[in-house]
Amino acid sequence: MQCNDVQATEPDIKVSLTRVGVTNLKKLVKLKRKNKRDIVLLPTFEVFVDLPSSQKGIHMSRSPEVIEEVVENILLEKEIYGVEDLSVEIVMKLFEKHEYATRAEIMLYSDYMMEEKSPVTQKDSQEIGKIIARAYGVKDENGKIAVKKMVGAEVVGITACPCAQNMLKENAVANLKEKGFSSEEIEKILDSVTIATHNQRGIGTVMIEVPNGYAVGISKIIKIIKNSMSGEVYELLKRSDEAFVVEAAHKNPKFVEDCAREMIKRVVDVFDYLPEDTQVLVRQVNKESIHRHDAFAERNSTIRELRDELKTLTN
Amino acid sequence: MQCNDVQATEPDIKVSLTRVGVTNLKKLVKLKRKNKRDIVLLPTFEVFVDLPSSQKGIHMSRSPEVIEEVVENILLEKEIYGVEDLSVEIVMKLFEKHEYATRAEIMLYSDYMMEEKSPVTQKDSQEIGKIIARAYGVKDENGKIAVKKMVGAEVVGITACPCAQNMLKENAVANLKEKGFSSEEIEKILDSVTIATHNQRGIGTVMIEVPNGYAVGISKIIKIIKNSMSGEVYELLKRSDEAFVVEAAHKNPKFVEDCAREMIKRVVDVFDYLPEDTQVLVRQVNKESIHRHDAFAERNSTIRELRDELKTLTN
Amino acid sequence: MQCNDVQATEPDIKVSLTRVGVTNLKKLVKLKRKNKRDIVLLPTFEVFVDLPSSQKGIHMSRSPEVIEEVVENILLEKEIYGVEDLSVEIVMKLFEKHEYATRAEIMLYSDYMMEEKSPVTQKDSQEIGKIIARAYGVKDENGKIAVKKMVGAEVVGITACPCAQNMLKENAVANLKEKGFSSEEIEKILDSVTIATHNQRGIGTVMIEVPNGYAVGISKIIKIIKNSMSGEVYELLKRSDEAFVVEAAHKNPKFVEDCAREMIKRVVDVFDYLPEDTQVLVRQVNKESIHRHDAFAERNSTIRELRDELKTLTN
Amino acid sequence: MQCNDVQATEPDIKVSLTRVGVTNLKKLVKLKRKNKRDIVLLPTFEVFVDLPSSQKGIHMSRSPEVIEEVVENILLEKEIYGVEDLSVEIVMKLFEKHEYATRAEIMLYSDYMMEEKSPVTQKDSQEIGKIIARAYGVKDENGKIAVKKMVGAEVVGITACPCAQNMLKENAVANLKEKGFSSEEIEKILDSVTIATHNQRGIGTVMIEVPNGYAVGISKIIKIIKNSMSGEVYELLKRSDEAFVVEAAHKNPKFVEDCAREMIKRVVDVFDYLPEDTQVLVRQVNKESIHRHDAFAERNSTIRELRDELKTLTN
Repeated sequence: MQCNDVQATEPDIKVSLTRVGVTNLKKLVKLKRKNKRDIVLLPTFEVFVDLPSSQKGIHMSRSPEVIEEVVENILLEKEIYGVEDLSVEIVMKLFEKHEYATRAEIMLYSDYMMEEKSPVTQKDSQEIGKIIARAYGVKDENGKIAVKKMVGAEVVGITACPCAQNMLKENAVANLKEKGFSSEEIEKILDSVTIATHNQRGIGTVMIEVPNGYAVGISKIIKIIKNSMSGEVYELLKRSDEAFVVEAAHKNPKFVEDCAREMIKRVVDVFDYLPEDTQVLVRQVNKESIHRHDAFAERNSTIRELRDELKTLTN
Repeated sequence: MQCNDVQATEPDIKVSLTRVGVTNLKKLVKLKRKNKRDIVLLPTFEVFVDLPSSQKGIHMSRSPEVIEEVVENILLEKEIYGVEDLSVEIVMKLFEKHEYATRAEIMLYSDYMMEEKSPVTQKDSQEIGKIIARAYGVKDENGKIAVKKMVGAEVVGITACPCAQNMLKENAVANLKEKGFSSEEIEKILDSVTIATHNQRGIGTVMIEVPNGYAVGISKIIKIIKNSMSGEVYELLKRSDEAFVVEAAHKNPKFVEDCAREMIKRVVDVFDYLPEDTQVLVRQVNKESIHRHDAFAERNSTIRELRDELKTLTN
Repeated sequence: MQCNDVQATEPDIKVSLTRVGVTNLKKLVKLKRKNKRDIVLLPTFEVFVDLPSSQKGIHMSRSPEVIEEVVENILLEKEIYGVEDLSVEIVMKLFEKHEYATRAEIMLYSDYMMEEKSPVTQKDSQEIGKIIARAYGVKDENGKIAVKKMVGAEVVGITACPCAQNMLKENAVANLKEKGFSSEEIEKILDSVTIATHNQRGIGTVMIEVPNGYAVGISKIIKIIKNSMSGEVYELLKRSDEAFVVEAAHKNPKFVEDCAREMIKRVVDVFDYLPEDTQVLVRQVNKESIHRHDAFAERNSTIRELRDELKTLTN
Repeated sequence: MQCNDVQATEPDIKVSLTRVGVTNLKKLVKLKRKNKRDIVLLPTFEVFVDLPSSQKGIHMSRSPEVIEEVVENILLEKEIYGVEDLSVEIVMKLFEKHEYATRAEIMLYSDYMMEEKSPVTQKDSQEIGKIIARAYGVKDENGKIAVKKMVGAEVVGITACPCAQNMLKENAVANLKEKGFSSEEIEKILDSVTIATHNQRGIGTVMIEVPNGYAVGISKIIKIIKNSMSGEVYELLKRSDEAFVVEAAHKNPKFVEDCAREMIKRVVDVFDYLPEDTQVLVRQVNKESIHRHDAFAERNSTIRELRDELKTLTN
């Protein structure tokens, strides 16, 4: 037997595999931007191809090689560039190097630094989010390749529960009535105080398909996620900032379901130019402060379905 | 407004949600077995229902309540019982408590203790695997509920790479020839020594749908996974056990792809009584000892497709 | 060379090692209790011995063997028993099996189920905490072994920030004054409403040395931790329970430092019978809802120091 | 009460705390290097100060503020700079901002990219390690501050077990004798073949104190760790590289204890200029391919003790 290609031999058990590849692979990536500082990322990659029943193995080393080559190339050649374009390039190279493959797939996620200011004192405060990209390619019998790509982000914010706040408001109203305050006075009082509720870290995620010829900005996605929770969180808050953040979040209480719906609405508004069958995923996880477990809400659909529901229901 | 049911009010943004629920919830579960010791598990649960566009929230607390009630009941009422049956019961109760839901879903995974013996010295050695169950229910317009359930396991074993072993064998043959050994002698030598390769922890996963009226034993699944890698691992190995494990694994080298295919073949053989459209997922991840990253192989299909491929190709 | 004991040979580099052993080892443990149900745990173990410069290796397999044997024995022989006693027994057996060792050490931690009731509706609610045990033995030149043991727990609760609440109270007072309410009225109002603040999951940890001849109950430790935060959390809360938990936590706001100090005070009160040089560790981590980072407070000292500080300062 | 400083008030329970601060805080850091590219890191920080019994809280926000300021400053002012110097600067600023503190402490760890070549084909292969820095300051009664700093790294490699290899060699010798090979022939055969053993990912860690006026290079530490295991791992290995890595590791089998001792010896050799009381920590964890658990070895001591042991014992 010729060792140089055990992988190319026939396997004993002739069954095809859906996805074969490497996971948990980290590489430094520099993204060039027009008239802006380069972005340096350290993403974790997952790359896969399918494997026909007639072939034993996939030449595993070619997959990290593809990443290495693409990552090196963008340092030198490309002009402007996003992580989703990087992903498409990797998919195309996966087909090139794994000539038997009819499907190729990549997912990458990376910490991402955002420069921000605390809301009142305007102190500099670096914030860390996560950006995510996927690309998935299919090769037809004529060797034509169709690739879909998605880009998205995961951001931490604060969520305050509307239900507990409502119950505490009712308790307050009952107490105030008992102490002899009039309805008119009570209304004034409720306007003057911030009623408590449980609040917690929430994690919002949005992934959007980027059809060929269209652009979807990661910074817009990050803004959507931040604006869809009760409030933003900051690594650096002086006292007046802290009071501001807490008050703002309590004036904007949201269930985990509300956060998901807010993200949907904003995605439909901001990306109104995207075609109907663009795929959208929206997810919110709240690390409940009153439980050990988490609350979860998700929507996974096309932008057409989202537009239709929003239109129908608001009429 | 009536606080008692903020969740039942109409949301501002009228969009339905795919999955709303709780994740990361741990509960102690006792499973009764006929003529055997009870099994005590501490699973982590994820439970979800869908939410129509007309309703603000899902009454989140009903989901942990469902789990609590079902988990309590099995202590008292049921006779024999598997984690997939537990999952179906939870799905049915989710529909009961979330009357607006048209889909309900649960996933649970738990450490699972197996009593074993080391291979040579026959020392007692507790081994820990993971068992997994899922159930997914859909309610049609007439209120009829159809539930699908899956059961599976995740087990650690050892995998040894056939390609590196082959190259090292070729190097050995070249060296032996140079030292004057004949082809016949070399054959004898290769029969007498165990040639090195890289080997590592592998993690095999199998999930199988359990159609109504059928049974799929978790211990059979665990055995399939263990037998599909190069060898089993043990928490307690005396010296002669260790030599046995290492030699056995090196006589049975397997790519990550081979492990996946072995699992497929054994699933098809062992569960030959399952109907054609039974869903099967098979996954292998190897924590490569020569890389920082992992190797991955997966097949996701119906048992019909697997049977067809195996039949066609072995003819 | 005699293979049977490579480990007993002299190493090339003759340097002693502080700790050699196994980590990340899980075993099922059953603890018998007088007149009560057995407790079933699935702890993760770390066990270590030191290694003299004259010996190459520690016979690694003897360490899981020790755990296996001790864990099996308690099923059969012992009467009453805690995880710290289990730990001491493992340390003694480590010395027996690693005759060259002058130090032996074990740490174990395990999920732990607690049966509870939600605060208002009194619904059953299983809660999961973590219990921890350590034992550390030293053998002197005459072969006499002295062992120290510790036991403790890690429990999740809710913490509400007093500083933000105070600022929001001041804002409320200013608003109310502006709207013409008198100081007397404002006092009544503040008595009637629950002012907001940020609140979050807190994780409290207490570890206490158990001197020979003394007992330290884990359930007492768990109670101390729960009582030292702003409030308890529950896996199951109906609406009235939720309002209760949120109000109670907001009436009892605590900094991360306050939680640590509360735990210290309660440990000193509850365990007033423990001797002066008993070691105590107290730690609180709050997963801040207004930040991505966590707040942390810790005290590590003898009970004597804690008593002295509390005495001196309250005089 | 004056809200602006709840933290500065006296606490109800007057007990001092050992460590109060923030954990899990990520910040982007750029390190300038003379005549070299800047290094961009995204470390996770932990910073602590102690808190006297007379003060309620530590003004938590000042700790992230310190990090933010120091991290910003190094972009502008400093010439050459290591993570341990960054750590000292943060400790000094912690004292400045927390004027009541008598102890201040920081720990940071960060992924770290290394450019490498695969061993045979010389392909570019980015490798990721982890770098770690600590600084710990104490302020005496006269306000004089003494700071200790440490720097180190954590690197993944491959380890091959000498004991299992030895047993398989003995089995091979027995088999070869049975087949009629002479002792002389057997010696030649053993020279020509690579005998198998179990091998796995190992994780080596070295932390070294950096006394004032001394320098300890991180790249030297990384090299020490890599050279102390059976071999290096690579993200990209073509076939001939893979054979090389496997053969090299099998020619250099090492117990977890051996790896720790190799690191000690190399630290003593490479850093022969460091003063006697320099603190050294060395740790090796092997993710055993034949077990689910890990093997562990550690030495924690001064460089004097290490030198003494090495000198005494080699004489």
